[in-house]
This record gives sequence, C-alpha cells and structure tokens, in this order.
Amino acid sequence: MAAQIIDGNVLAKRVQADVRGRVRALREAGRPVRLAALLVTRAPAGEIYAQRQAASCRELGIDYDLIKLPDESRFAEIAGEIDRLNEDPSVTGIMVHLPLPGGVEPTDVQHRIATVKDVEGVSPANIGYVIYGREVIVPCTALAAMELVRSTGYRLEGAEAVVVGASAIAGRPAALLLTQAGATVTVCHKMTRDLKSHTRRADVLVVAAGVPNLIAADHVREGAVVIDVGINRVTTLDGKTRTIGDVNFEDVQHKAAYLSPVPGGVGPMTVAVLLQNVVRSAELIAKRA
Amino acid sequence: MAAQIIDGNVLAKRVQADVRGRVRALREAGRPVRLAALLVTRAPAGEIYAQRQAASCRELGIDYDLIKLPDESRFAEIAGEIDRLNEDPSVTGIMVHLPLPGGVEPTDVQHRIATVKDVEGVSPANIGYVIYGREVIVPCTALAAMELVRSTGYRLEGAEAVVVGASAIAGRPAALLLTQAGATVTVCHKMTRDLKSHTRRADVLVVAAGVPNLIAADHVREGAVVIDVGINRVTTLDGKTRTIGDVNFEDVQHKAAYLSPVPGGVGPMTVAVLLQNVVRSAELIAKRA
Repeated sequence: MAAQIIDGNVLAKRVQADVRGRVRALREAGRPVRLAALLVTRAPAGEIYAQRQAASCRELGIDYDLIKLPDESRFAEIAGEIDRLNEDPSVTGIMVHLPLPGGVEPTDVQHRIATVKDVEGVSPANIGYVIYGREVIVPCTALAAMELVRSTGYRLEGAEAVVVGASAIAGRPAALLLTQAGATVTVCHKMTRDLKSHTRRADVLVVAAGVPNLIAADHVREGAVVIDVGINRVTTLDGKTRTIGDVNFEDVQHKAAYLSPVPGGVGPMTVAVLLQNVVRSAELIAKRA
Repeated sequence: MAAQIIDGNVLAKRVQADVRGRVRALREAGRPVRLAALLVTRAPAGEIYAQRQAASCRELGIDYDLIKLPDESRFAEIAGEIDRLNEDPSVTGIMVHLPLPGGVEPTDVQHRIATVKDVEGVSPANIGYVIYGREVIVPCTALAAMELVRSTGYRLEGAEAVVVGASAIAGRPAALLLTQAGATVTVCHKMTRDLKSHTRRADVLVVAAGVPNLIAADHVREGAVVIDVGINRVTTLDGKTRTIGDVNFEDVQHKAAYLSPVPGGVGPMTVAVLLQNVVRSAELIAKRA
C-alpha cells in the first residue's frame, strides 16, 4: 500500500491563513508587525530568497525591511545593526540571511538577537525554553517537522520516535519537541553504529541528516510516519540540478503510512512557520507593552 | 564480577582542588569570586544546606553571601533582589535555594538570573548553549552525571546511551551532553512503553527518574556504565529514613562494569560542580571586564 503523502504546501496555506488573521487583529489594535531581515553577502540566492520573503510578508500584512550591509561588513558592524533593531520598538522580528562574510560566526550574530524578536528561534534562550516546555519561539525547521507529524493525527504519547541528525537547529530541537509530546526519542547521527537498528524501531522517523537518499525502505518500519527534513541540491546525469531529500521517496512510499516529500514537504512549511513566529513575536511584544 | 564503584566523593575532591587553584588565580588578578544565594522560605533543610554551602565556599576562597528574604516574599520582591544582584559587579554568581513560597514559580525566578551569573545552569540560555556545544554554564546535576561517566574512561563516540527521566534540569541536559560527546542517545520517561527494551541496549545508562529502585539487574546490559542520579528519601520498616537511588544497587552491581552509588555518587559531585560553575562564572566575567 502506498503511503499517504503529507502535503507541505496545503498545510503551509492553512498556517498562512491563521497568520493573516492574527496580523489583522494586531493591526486593528494599533500594534506593529514588522520583520527586519539582514542581508550581508550579496549571493544571488540570498537576494532572491529575500525578495520572495518580502512578497510573502506583504501578502499577509507584515511590514518587511530588508537591511543590506556592505559585503565586507565585520562582526562589529553587523552586531551594531542587531543592537539597533533590538532597541527599535517598531521592529517586532529580526532574522539574518546566511551566509555571512568569512570570519563572522553565524551563531555569534544570531545569539545577539533579543529573545522575543528572534523569529527563527535560533537564540540559546529560545532553544532552552523548548526544554522547559515553554516554547516561546521554536526553531522553524524543527517546528515545521513537528507540525507535519501532528498533521497525521498520530498519537505521540508513548510512541517510539527516532531523529536522524543532531544539528542544533533541526535534529536536536525536533527531538526535544517530540519528547515534550510524550514520545520516547532516540537521536542518531554520523557516529551512530547501527542506524537501521534504530530507524526500524521508529513509529515516527524524522530525518534531518543532510545526506541524499540516506533512508531506504529497509530502514523503515511498516506503517511509520516518515518526515524528510533534508534539502539536498544534486546534479543528475543529464547535468540538471534537482532538489532531493534524505529519504529515498520511491522506495519508502511503499512502506511508510505517511511520508513527507521533498520538495513540497518541510520546505514550504518552514517558510510558513517563520511567518507564524513573526506574528507570535509581535503578539508577545504587544502583550508586554 | 562486581562493578567498579564510581566514588563521587573522591572525584568531587579533585574538582574542589581544581576550583581552589582557579579561585586563587582570580584573587591574585584582583578579580571578585562571590556567590550570592537567595533563601526565601525558612525550611530548616534549606538553612542547613546554606550553612554547608557557606563552609564549602569559605574553604575554597569563594566569598559567600546568604540573602534571606521574608517568608511571605512575593515574586516582585524576589525578582527585584535578583535584578540588584545581576547589576552588582562584586557578585559573580547567583543561585536560589528551593523551595520558594507558594505561588512563586521557581523557573520564573531562575530565568531572571543573568546568563553569566547563573551558576546552577538553569536559565534557558545556558541550556540552549549546551545544544550549540558552547556549554557556557552547564546545569549542575547533568554535568555531574557526565563527569562520573567520563571518569570511567568509557569511549562515548558511537556508544549507545540511554537516559531514563526527561526533566528539564537533569535528564534532558544530560542527554544533550551525551549526544555532544558522540553517543547515540535515547531519552525514556514515564510514557515509555517498554523501558527494558531500551535500557538493555545501553552501554551507558543514566537514571534520573526519581523512582526508588526503578532499575534492576535485568534492565541492565552486562558490562554497562550505570550512573544513578536519583536521590530518594525513603522510610524503612524500622521507621528510619534513608537515601536511596533509582537503581537497585545490590542487584545491579553484579551486572554493570561501573556503577555510581547513592549516596556518595552524583550527590557530592553536584555540589562540587556547582562550585566549579561559580569559578567559571567569575572567570567569564573577569575575561569580559
């Protein structure tokens, strides 16, 4: 039997509709909802992404400022800009487009963002709040993966969940969210001795390893919920580039009960969840005002 | 064969010797090392603990202020005192003795402590830093458990580690530290369906469930490293009270390769690690000055 495909685009549209309503409510109460995005290196991909983001924000009624800093900016200038945005009461959310110039550590910059304005959920305090179950602003990718799991209606209390990949912004926060929801969670990574022995136990399998086609059918338990967080650009034999996930879709779709595709799964949901975080930040700030 | 017993008192003494030297170096550089401890409710246990802590600090050259607030203090007063200590440059570390008066949420108070002065490592940012592998100030109990594991020399890269108990200040941070060290980590808790199936896989088993004698020999893999984080006060048949762990020591000592006892294991190490965090905070503050 073929797996039910989890449609990230459909779910993202639902999130956007919710965001649109909440933005309108804030506007009516005279509260600002403004995302400031910092773009430092002039990589074309960054510009395109920023333009798309500006359009998404506009569509939902969110003000969007793209702040371009010179290519050669160093940590002090970037940090100064973050400090200014932290203080600016008209700005309710801040994010930093990667990559940054060589020698500037992304986490040094991201960790400087005020907790309540950190819409990507990458500051240590926001990740720490996930452990405390407060979930102030949850890291976007992990939250998107979790929303895809939740969309299946699968009961997480007591379920066996396995996360493949232990990154600070995807794998580990996803594991914390799954634990919070009552699952017994194992985090596997490149040092894991026998990956299959773990993934085969999983009722819920979240794969965020960044390794194309890492997970095949014989890694997967019959009837599992499989969420593919990998976004890998690969060049095919005919010279074209294609985006594929960490899960071998063709193979696994005959074994899993639910499967999220790449593209069209976690990707669009992550974009939507970022906007959800933007409105959440604005709501938290409005509440404190 | 009997397990090698991990002697928390011996290891704690080594940590204290290290702390003493580092405090001396700071003193010689003219830097303050001062722990301010807040005691609100006048529970006799709290007073006794605070007196012992004062003695330990004095012995290592650490200044110690015990700040007693009236029993009926509410959140605003306690928070005001924390704010004052955060600002005071002569104070390098802050901790709050529990319990607090009814209606005051401990985490609300603890999360107010400046990250760099949070010597118990309970603020969200300090827990978040563990995920980022920065380990600014690591939660004491989790760090103590980790130090006991490390004392065995067991190679953690690729090892199977299982943590029983998913609390925000012990189980989950311990899991993050073990992941950081390269282990494949599973976190079990009261909703876990088949606890034994997990604990039996464990090369390293850390038990922080708060359930007396939860873990027996048939939960344990032959030759495992077993760390007992439980500290349970129980009343025996003869009416005496006794402190026991989450691990059935008599039973498990014939199966594990290394076993930490209760009392005399994680307990004394946690006290020592708190003082290590105190000197670490003072060093971080000195470096920034």
